[in-house]
Amino acid sequence: MMEEREISQAVITRLPRYFRYLGELKDNGVERISSQELSEIMNATASQIRQDFNNFGGFGQQGYGYNVELLYKEIGKILGLDRQHHMIIIGAGNLGHALANYMNFERRGFIFDGCFDINEKLIGTKIRGIEVLPMEEMEDFIIQNNIDMAVIAIPKVGAAEVADRLVACGIKAIWNFAHIDLKVPDNVTVENVHLSESLMKLSYNFNTAKRNKN
Amino acid sequence: MMEEREISQAVITRLPRYFRYLGELKDNGVERISSQELSEIMNATASQIRQDFNNFGGFGQQGYGYNVELLYKEIGKILGLDRQHHMIIIGAGNLGHALANYMNFERRGFIFDGCFDINEKLIGTKIRGIEVLPMEEMEDFIIQNNIDMAVIAIPKVGAAEVADRLVACGIKAIWNFAHIDLKVPDNVTVENVHLSESLMKLSYNFNTAKRNKN
Repeated sequence: MMEEREISQAVITRLPRYFRYLGELKDNGVERISSQELSEIMNATASQIRQDFNNFGGFGQQGYGYNVELLYKEIGKILGLDRQHHMIIIGAGNLGHALANYMNFERRGFIFDGCFDINEKLIGTKIRGIEVLPMEEMEDFIIQNNIDMAVIAIPKVGAAEVADRLVACGIKAIWNFAHIDLKVPDNVTVENVHLSESLMKLSYNFNTAKRNKN
Repeated sequence: MMEEREISQAVITRLPRYFRYLGELKDNGVERISSQELSEIMNATASQIRQDFNNFGGFGQQGYGYNVELLYKEIGKILGLDRQHHMIIIGAGNLGHALANYMNFERRGFIFDGCFDINEKLIGTKIRGIEVLPMEEMEDFIIQNNIDMAVIAIPKVGAAEVADRLVACGIKAIWNFAHIDLKVPDNVTVENVHLSESLMKLSYNFNTAKRNKN
Protein backbone atom coordinates (compact mmCIF):
# COMPACT_ATOMS: atom_id res chain seq x y z
CA MET A 1 0.00 0.00 0.00
CA MET A 2 2.68 2.46 0.97
CA GLU A 3 4.49 1.54 -2.22
CA GLU A 4 1.79 3.18 -4.30
CA ARG A 5 2.35 6.53 -2.69
CA GLU A 6 5.88 6.65 -3.96
CA ILE A 7 5.06 6.50 -7.64
CA SER A 8 6.02 9.85 -9.10
CA GLN A 9 3.44 12.11 -10.72
CA ALA A 10 5.57 12.00 -13.89
CA VAL A 11 4.86 8.27 -14.17
CA ILE A 12 1.16 8.80 -13.37
CA THR A 13 1.03 11.44 -16.10
CA ARG A 14 2.34 8.93 -18.63
CA LEU A 15 -0.03 6.10 -17.65
CA PRO A 16 -3.10 7.45 -19.52
CA ARG A 17 -0.96 7.75 -22.65
CA TYR A 18 0.08 4.10 -22.39
CA PHE A 19 -3.57 3.26 -21.89
CA ARG A 20 -4.53 5.18 -25.03
CA TYR A 21 -1.90 3.54 -27.24
CA LEU A 22 -2.63 0.08 -25.89
CA GLY A 23 -6.34 0.63 -26.55
CA GLU A 24 -5.54 1.48 -30.16
CA LEU A 25 -3.31 -1.57 -30.55
CA LYS A 26 -6.03 -3.76 -29.06
CA ASP A 27 -8.63 -2.28 -31.41
CA ASN A 28 -6.29 -3.01 -34.29
CA GLY A 29 -6.08 -6.66 -33.26
CA VAL A 30 -2.49 -6.60 -31.98
CA GLU A 31 -2.08 -9.32 -29.32
CA ARG A 32 1.51 -8.94 -28.16
CA ILE A 33 4.02 -6.13 -28.23
CA SER A 34 7.59 -5.70 -27.00
CA SER A 35 8.70 -2.63 -25.07
CA GLN A 36 10.89 -1.85 -28.09
CA GLU A 37 7.94 -1.82 -30.51
CA LEU A 38 5.80 0.13 -28.05
CA SER A 39 8.59 2.67 -27.64
CA GLU A 40 8.74 3.24 -31.40
CA ILE A 41 5.00 3.87 -31.69
CA MET A 42 4.94 6.13 -28.64
CA ASN A 43 8.10 8.04 -29.38
CA ALA A 44 9.56 7.13 -25.97
CA THR A 45 12.52 4.96 -24.96
CA ALA A 46 12.03 1.25 -24.29
CA SER A 47 13.90 1.62 -21.01
CA GLN A 48 11.54 4.35 -19.80
CA ILE A 49 8.57 2.14 -20.62
CA ARG A 50 10.08 -0.80 -18.73
CA GLN A 51 10.98 1.44 -15.79
CA ASP A 52 7.48 2.91 -15.69
CA PHE A 53 5.89 -0.54 -15.79
CA ASN A 54 8.24 -1.81 -13.09
CA ASN A 55 6.51 0.58 -10.70
CA PHE A 56 3.52 -1.71 -10.96
CA GLY A 57 5.34 -5.03 -10.90
CA GLY A 58 6.40 -5.00 -14.56
CA PHE A 59 3.22 -6.63 -15.94
CA GLY A 60 5.12 -9.84 -16.56
CA GLN A 61 6.85 -9.14 -19.83
CA GLN A 62 8.49 -12.27 -21.13
CA GLY A 63 10.81 -12.84 -24.05
CA TYR A 64 7.98 -12.34 -26.49
CA GLY A 65 6.65 -9.08 -25.08
CA TYR A 66 3.53 -7.89 -23.32
CA ASN A 67 0.03 -9.25 -23.75
CA VAL A 68 -1.70 -6.13 -25.11
CA GLU A 69 -5.19 -6.81 -23.81
CA LEU A 70 -3.96 -7.79 -20.36
CA LEU A 71 -1.70 -4.76 -20.11
CA TYR A 72 -4.52 -2.48 -21.27
CA LYS A 73 -6.82 -3.90 -18.60
CA GLU A 74 -4.18 -3.73 -15.86
CA ILE A 75 -3.35 -0.09 -16.57
CA GLY A 76 -7.06 0.69 -16.72
CA LYS A 77 -7.48 -0.86 -13.28
CA ILE A 78 -4.55 1.13 -11.89
CA LEU A 79 -6.18 4.29 -13.26
CA GLY A 80 -9.43 3.35 -11.52
CA LEU A 81 -11.26 2.89 -14.82
CA ASP A 82 -12.68 -0.47 -13.76
CA ARG A 83 -15.15 1.25 -11.44
CA GLN A 84 -17.74 3.97 -11.85
CA HIS A 85 -17.30 7.53 -10.70
CA HIS A 86 -20.23 9.85 -10.32
CA MET A 87 -19.53 13.41 -11.38
CA ILE A 88 -21.22 16.77 -11.25
CA ILE A 89 -20.21 19.80 -13.26
CA ILE A 90 -20.29 23.26 -11.72
CA GLY A 91 -20.86 25.75 -14.52
CA ALA A 92 -23.21 25.15 -17.45
CA GLY A 93 -21.44 27.50 -19.85
CA ASN A 94 -19.64 26.46 -23.01
CA LEU A 95 -16.87 24.71 -21.14
CA GLY A 96 -19.28 22.81 -18.89
CA HIS A 97 -21.22 21.84 -22.00
CA ALA A 98 -18.09 20.69 -23.80
CA LEU A 99 -17.03 18.53 -20.87
CA ALA A 100 -20.50 17.03 -20.39
CA ASN A 101 -20.54 16.09 -24.06
CA TYR A 102 -17.30 14.13 -23.98
CA MET A 103 -19.05 10.79 -24.42
CA ASN A 104 -15.73 9.09 -24.06
CA PHE A 105 -15.61 9.94 -20.36
CA GLU A 106 -18.78 7.95 -19.77
CA ARG A 107 -17.30 4.97 -21.58
CA ARG A 108 -14.45 5.09 -19.06
CA GLY A 109 -16.79 5.04 -16.08
CA PHE A 110 -17.13 8.75 -15.40
CA ILE A 111 -20.87 9.23 -15.16
CA PHE A 112 -22.22 12.76 -15.57
CA ASP A 113 -25.06 13.01 -13.04
CA GLY A 114 -25.71 16.68 -12.43
CA CYS A 115 -24.92 20.23 -13.44
CA PHE A 116 -25.18 23.45 -11.45
CA ASP A 117 -25.05 27.13 -12.28
CA ILE A 118 -25.93 30.50 -10.76
CA ASN A 119 -27.15 31.90 -14.08
CA GLU A 120 -30.96 32.10 -14.08
CA LYS A 121 -31.00 31.76 -17.86
CA LEU A 122 -29.22 28.41 -17.72
CA ILE A 123 -31.06 26.91 -14.75
CA GLY A 124 -33.75 24.56 -16.05
CA THR A 125 -32.08 24.03 -19.43
CA LYS A 126 -30.78 20.58 -20.21
CA ILE A 127 -27.34 19.23 -21.10
CA ARG A 128 -27.45 15.70 -22.45
CA GLY A 129 -30.80 15.23 -20.75
CA ILE A 130 -29.51 16.46 -17.39
CA GLU A 131 -31.30 19.51 -15.99
CA VAL A 132 -29.14 22.42 -14.87
CA LEU A 133 -29.94 23.07 -11.19
CA PRO A 134 -29.38 26.14 -9.03
CA MET A 135 -26.23 26.18 -6.89
CA GLU A 136 -28.31 26.10 -3.70
CA GLU A 137 -29.25 22.51 -4.45
CA MET A 138 -25.68 21.30 -4.92
CA GLU A 139 -24.98 19.96 -1.43
CA ASP A 140 -28.20 17.93 -1.17
CA PHE A 141 -27.67 16.53 -4.65
CA ILE A 142 -24.12 15.41 -3.86
CA ILE A 143 -25.20 13.58 -0.73
CA GLN A 144 -28.33 11.99 -2.23
CA ASN A 145 -26.58 10.79 -5.39
CA ASN A 146 -23.28 9.56 -3.93
CA ILE A 147 -21.27 11.94 -6.08
CA ASP A 148 -17.53 11.46 -5.76
CA MET A 149 -16.08 13.86 -8.30
CA ALA A 150 -16.80 17.48 -9.15
CA VAL A 151 -15.72 19.52 -12.13
CA ILE A 152 -15.24 23.26 -11.58
CA ALA A 153 -15.94 24.89 -14.93
CA ILE A 154 -16.62 28.44 -13.76
CA PRO A 155 -14.41 31.53 -13.87
CA LYS A 156 -11.82 32.26 -11.20
CA VAL A 157 -14.19 34.43 -9.17
CA GLY A 158 -16.29 32.17 -7.00
CA ALA A 159 -14.21 29.03 -7.62
CA ALA A 160 -12.55 29.04 -4.19
CA GLU A 161 -15.91 29.29 -2.44
CA VAL A 162 -17.38 26.50 -4.56
CA ALA A 163 -14.38 24.29 -3.75
CA ASP A 164 -14.90 24.91 -0.03
CA ARG A 165 -18.53 23.90 -0.34
CA LEU A 166 -17.63 20.76 -2.28
CA VAL A 167 -15.06 19.74 0.31
CA ALA A 168 -17.49 20.47 3.15
CA CYS A 169 -19.96 17.94 1.79
CA GLY A 170 -17.39 15.23 1.27
CA ILE A 171 -16.13 15.55 -2.31
CA LYS A 172 -12.63 14.06 -2.50
CA ALA A 173 -11.78 14.65 -6.17
CA ILE A 174 -11.97 17.98 -8.01
CA TRP A 175 -11.20 18.55 -11.68
CA ASN A 176 -10.48 22.26 -11.68
CA PHE A 177 -10.66 24.48 -14.78
CA ALA A 178 -10.77 27.78 -12.87
CA HIS A 179 -7.57 29.74 -13.16
CA ILE A 180 -6.73 29.55 -9.47
CA ASP A 181 -4.84 27.17 -7.19
CA LEU A 182 -7.47 25.74 -4.87
CA LYS A 183 -6.68 25.36 -1.19
CA VAL A 184 -8.06 22.01 -0.08
CA PRO A 185 -7.25 19.51 2.70
CA ASP A 186 -4.60 16.86 2.02
CA ASN A 187 -7.18 14.11 1.54
CA VAL A 188 -8.78 15.92 -1.41
CA THR A 189 -7.28 15.31 -4.86
CA VAL A 190 -7.25 18.23 -7.29
CA GLU A 191 -6.27 18.01 -10.94
CA ASN A 192 -5.91 21.41 -12.59
CA VAL A 193 -6.43 22.26 -16.24
CA HIS A 194 -5.15 25.80 -16.47
CA LEU A 195 -5.89 26.60 -20.09
CA SER A 196 -4.25 30.01 -20.20
CA GLU A 197 -1.03 28.57 -18.75
CA SER A 198 -1.01 25.96 -21.47
CA LEU A 199 -1.48 28.68 -24.09
CA MET A 200 1.38 30.71 -22.60
CA LYS A 201 3.63 27.67 -22.75
CA LEU A 202 2.78 27.30 -26.44
CA SER A 203 3.55 30.99 -26.90
CA TYR A 204 6.92 30.65 -25.18
CA ASN A 205 7.99 27.63 -27.21
CA PHE A 206 6.76 29.18 -30.45
CA ASN A 207 8.52 32.50 -29.86
CA THR A 208 11.72 30.83 -28.70
CA ALA A 209 11.80 28.61 -31.79
CA LYS A 210 11.25 31.70 -33.96
CA ARG A 211 14.07 33.63 -32.25
CA ASN A 212 16.45 30.71 -32.59
CA LYS A 213 15.66 30.45 -36.26
CA ASN A 214 16.22 34.16 -37.02
CA MET B 1 20.37 32.29 -28.26
CA MET B 2 21.41 28.68 -27.79
CA GLU B 3 21.04 29.17 -24.09
CA GLU B 4 17.29 29.53 -24.41
CA ARG B 5 16.95 26.09 -25.91
CA GLU B 6 18.35 24.50 -22.82
CA ILE B 7 15.70 25.74 -20.42
CA SER B 8 13.74 22.70 -19.33
CA GLN B 9 10.05 22.34 -20.09
CA ALA B 10 9.49 21.97 -16.34
CA VAL B 11 10.71 25.56 -15.86
CA ILE B 12 8.65 26.76 -18.84
CA THR B 13 5.60 25.08 -17.33
CA ARG B 14 6.09 27.05 -14.10
CA LEU B 15 6.61 30.45 -15.78
CA PRO B 16 2.89 31.13 -16.47
CA ARG B 17 2.16 30.40 -12.82
CA TYR B 18 4.75 32.97 -11.70
CA PHE B 19 3.20 35.37 -14.17
CA ARG B 20 -0.26 34.78 -12.69
CA TYR B 21 0.83 35.29 -9.09
CA LEU B 22 2.89 38.38 -9.93
CA GLY B 23 -0.09 39.82 -11.80
CA GLU B 24 -2.22 39.37 -8.70
CA LEU B 25 0.42 40.96 -6.47
CA LYS B 26 0.71 43.89 -8.87
CA ASP B 27 -3.08 44.33 -8.94
CA ASN B 28 -3.03 44.35 -5.14
CA GLY B 29 -0.47 47.17 -5.13
CA VAL B 30 2.51 45.12 -3.94
CA GLU B 31 5.71 46.74 -5.23
CA ARG B 32 8.46 44.47 -3.98
CA ILE B 33 8.62 40.85 -2.90
CA SER B 34 11.37 38.51 -1.74
CA SER B 35 11.74 34.99 -3.10
CA GLN B 36 10.88 33.82 0.43
CA GLU B 37 7.55 35.69 0.46
CA LEU B 38 6.78 34.60 -3.10
CA SER B 39 7.50 30.99 -2.17
CA GLU B 40 5.03 31.14 0.70
CA ILE B 41 2.22 32.48 -1.48
CA MET B 42 2.95 30.03 -4.27
CA ASN B 43 3.52 26.98 -2.10
CA ALA B 44 6.96 26.40 -3.67
CA THR B 45 10.47 26.62 -2.22
CA ALA B 46 12.40 29.89 -2.37
CA SER B 47 15.38 28.05 -3.81
CA GLN B 48 13.33 26.67 -6.69
CA ILE B 49 12.05 30.14 -7.47
CA ARG B 50 15.59 31.56 -7.46
CA GLN B 51 16.85 28.66 -9.58
CA ASP B 52 14.03 29.11 -12.08
CA PHE B 53 14.66 32.84 -12.34
CA ASN B 54 18.40 32.27 -12.75
CA ASN B 55 17.63 30.63 -16.09
CA PHE B 56 16.73 34.12 -17.28
CA GLY B 57 19.52 36.04 -15.60
CA GLY B 58 17.91 36.18 -12.16
CA PHE B 59 15.87 39.36 -12.74
CA GLY B 60 18.23 41.33 -10.53
CA GLN B 61 16.96 40.50 -7.08
CA GLN B 62 18.72 42.59 -4.52
CA GLY B 63 18.68 42.49 -0.75
CA TYR B 64 15.17 43.92 -0.69
CA GLY B 65 13.62 41.51 -3.17
CA TYR B 66 12.18 41.68 -6.66
CA ASN B 67 10.40 44.63 -8.22
CA VAL B 68 6.97 43.05 -8.81
CA GLU B 69 5.94 45.11 -11.83
CA LEU B 70 9.30 44.71 -13.55
CA LEU B 71 9.38 40.97 -12.91
CA TYR B 72 5.80 40.62 -14.17
CA LYS B 73 6.70 42.46 -17.36
CA GLU B 74 9.92 40.52 -17.89
CA ILE B 75 8.24 37.15 -17.50
CA GLY B 76 5.45 38.32 -19.81
CA LYS B 77 8.07 39.20 -22.42
CA ILE B 78 9.76 35.82 -22.06
CA LEU B 79 6.37 34.18 -22.60
CA GLY B 80 5.89 36.25 -25.75
CA LEU B 81 2.95 38.15 -24.26
CA ASP B 82 4.35 41.53 -25.33
CA ARG B 83 3.41 40.82 -28.95
CA GLN B 84 0.21 39.84 -30.71
CA HIS B 85 -0.56 36.38 -31.98
CA HIS B 86 -3.30 35.74 -34.50
CA MET B 87 -5.25 32.57 -33.89
CA ILE B 88 -7.86 30.52 -35.65
CA ILE B 89 -9.95 27.81 -34.06
CA ILE B 90 -10.75 24.61 -35.94
CA GLY B 91 -14.02 23.30 -34.58
CA ALA B 92 -16.99 25.49 -33.67
CA GLY B 93 -18.51 23.07 -31.18
CA ASN B 94 -18.81 23.65 -27.44
CA LEU B 95 -15.09 23.45 -26.86
CA GLY B 96 -14.28 25.84 -29.72
CA HIS B 97 -16.92 28.19 -28.33
CA ALA B 98 -15.53 27.98 -24.83
CA LEU B 99 -12.00 28.76 -26.03
CA ALA B 100 -13.14 31.64 -28.25
CA ASN B 101 -14.95 33.15 -25.30
CA TYR B 102 -11.93 33.23 -23.00
CA MET B 103 -11.66 37.02 -23.13
CA ASN B 104 -8.55 36.77 -21.05
CA PHE B 105 -6.61 35.31 -23.97
CA GLU B 106 -7.24 38.44 -26.02
CA ARG B 107 -5.98 40.60 -23.17
CA ARG B 108 -2.71 38.63 -23.36
CA GLY B 109 -2.30 39.27 -27.09
CA PHE B 110 -3.92 36.14 -28.50
CA ILE B 111 -6.34 37.49 -31.07
CA PHE B 112 -9.15 35.22 -32.22
CA ASP B 113 -9.49 35.93 -35.96
CA GLY B 114 -11.33 33.00 -37.48
CA CYS B 115 -13.19 29.78 -36.88
CA PHE B 116 -13.72 26.80 -39.17
CA ASP B 117 -15.94 23.75 -39.13
CA ILE B 118 -17.20 21.01 -41.44
CA ASN B 119 -20.68 21.02 -39.88
CA GLU B 120 -23.16 22.72 -42.27
CA LYS B 121 -25.33 23.73 -39.32
CA LEU B 122 -22.49 25.69 -37.73
CA ILE B 123 -21.08 27.31 -40.88
CA GLY B 124 -22.41 30.87 -41.10
CA THR B 125 -23.18 31.13 -37.37
CA LYS B 126 -21.16 33.60 -35.34
CA ILE B 127 -18.89 33.22 -32.31
CA ARG B 128 -18.06 36.54 -30.68
CA GLY B 129 -18.86 38.28 -33.96
CA ILE B 130 -16.62 35.97 -35.98
CA GLU B 131 -18.37 33.98 -38.71
CA VAL B 132 -17.77 30.24 -38.77
CA LEU B 133 -16.32 29.38 -42.21
CA PRO B 134 -16.15 26.09 -44.08
CA MET B 135 -12.91 24.12 -43.81
CA GLU B 136 -12.21 24.61 -47.53
CA GLU B 137 -11.49 28.26 -46.86
CA MET B 138 -8.97 27.66 -44.09
CA GLU B 139 -5.74 27.80 -46.10
CA ASP B 140 -6.60 31.06 -47.89
CA PHE B 141 -7.71 32.64 -44.65
CA ILE B 142 -4.48 31.71 -42.86
CA ILE B 143 -2.33 33.22 -45.58
CA GLN B 144 -4.42 36.37 -46.07
CA ASN B 145 -4.67 37.12 -42.35
CA ASN B 146 -1.13 36.28 -41.23
CA ILE B 147 -2.37 33.66 -38.79
CA ASP B 148 0.40 32.21 -36.64
CA MET B 149 -1.43 29.92 -34.24
CA ALA B 150 -4.16 27.35 -34.70
CA VAL B 151 -6.32 25.63 -32.11
CA ILE B 152 -7.51 22.12 -32.93
CA ALA B 153 -10.81 21.69 -31.10
CA ILE B 154 -12.25 18.78 -33.06
CA PRO B 155 -12.45 15.07 -32.19
CA LYS B 156 -9.56 12.70 -32.80
CA VAL B 157 -10.86 11.64 -36.20
CA GLY B 158 -9.74 14.20 -38.73
CA ALA B 159 -7.29 15.96 -36.41
CA ALA B 160 -4.16 14.50 -38.04
CA GLU B 161 -5.30 15.60 -41.48
CA VAL B 162 -6.14 19.09 -40.23
CA ALA B 163 -2.71 19.36 -38.61
CA ASP B 164 -1.04 18.39 -41.91
CA ARG B 165 -3.01 21.08 -43.71
CA LEU B 166 -2.09 23.69 -41.09
CA VAL B 167 1.59 22.82 -41.32
CA ALA B 168 1.47 22.85 -45.12
CA CYS B 169 0.34 26.47 -45.13
CA GLY B 170 2.94 27.63 -42.67
CA ILE B 171 1.36 27.40 -39.19
CA LYS B 172 4.14 27.00 -36.62
CA ALA B 173 2.15 26.75 -33.38
CA ILE B 174 -0.71 24.35 -32.71
CA TRP B 175 -2.76 24.16 -29.52
CA ASN B 176 -4.13 20.65 -29.75
CA PHE B 177 -7.22 19.44 -27.89
CA ALA B 178 -7.74 16.33 -30.04
CA HIS B 179 -6.89 13.14 -28.23
CA ILE B 180 -4.01 12.20 -30.51
CA ASP B 181 -0.28 12.89 -30.66
CA LEU B 182 0.20 14.95 -33.81
CA LYS B 183 3.12 14.20 -36.07
CA VAL B 184 4.58 17.54 -37.15
CA PRO B 185 8.01 18.74 -38.34
CA ASP B 186 10.53 19.85 -35.69
CA ASN B 187 9.98 23.54 -36.41
CA VAL B 188 6.31 23.33 -35.45
CA THR B 189 5.42 23.74 -31.78
CA VAL B 190 2.53 21.70 -30.41
CA GLU B 191 1.00 22.10 -26.97
CA ASN B 192 -1.43 19.33 -26.10
CA VAL B 193 -4.39 19.55 -23.77
CA HIS B 194 -5.48 15.93 -23.47
CA LEU B 195 -8.55 16.27 -21.28
CA SER B 196 -9.25 12.59 -20.82
CA GLU B 197 -5.67 11.97 -19.71
CA SER B 198 -6.04 14.69 -17.12
CA LEU B 199 -9.27 13.09 -15.89
CA MET B 200 -7.58 9.68 -15.66
CA LYS B 201 -4.79 11.21 -13.61
CA LEU B 202 -7.40 12.62 -11.23
CA SER B 203 -9.00 9.18 -11.09
CA TYR B 204 -5.68 7.49 -10.29
CA ASN B 205 -4.80 9.92 -7.50
CA PHE B 206 -8.30 9.80 -6.07
CA ASN B 207 -8.47 6.00 -6.05
CA THR B 208 -4.95 5.65 -4.67
CA ALA B 209 -5.71 8.06 -1.83
CA LYS B 210 -8.89 6.10 -1.10
CA ARG B 211 -7.04 2.77 -1.03
CA ASN B 212 -4.34 4.14 1.25
CA LYS B 213 -6.96 5.42 3.63
CA ASN B 214 -8.87 2.15 3.85
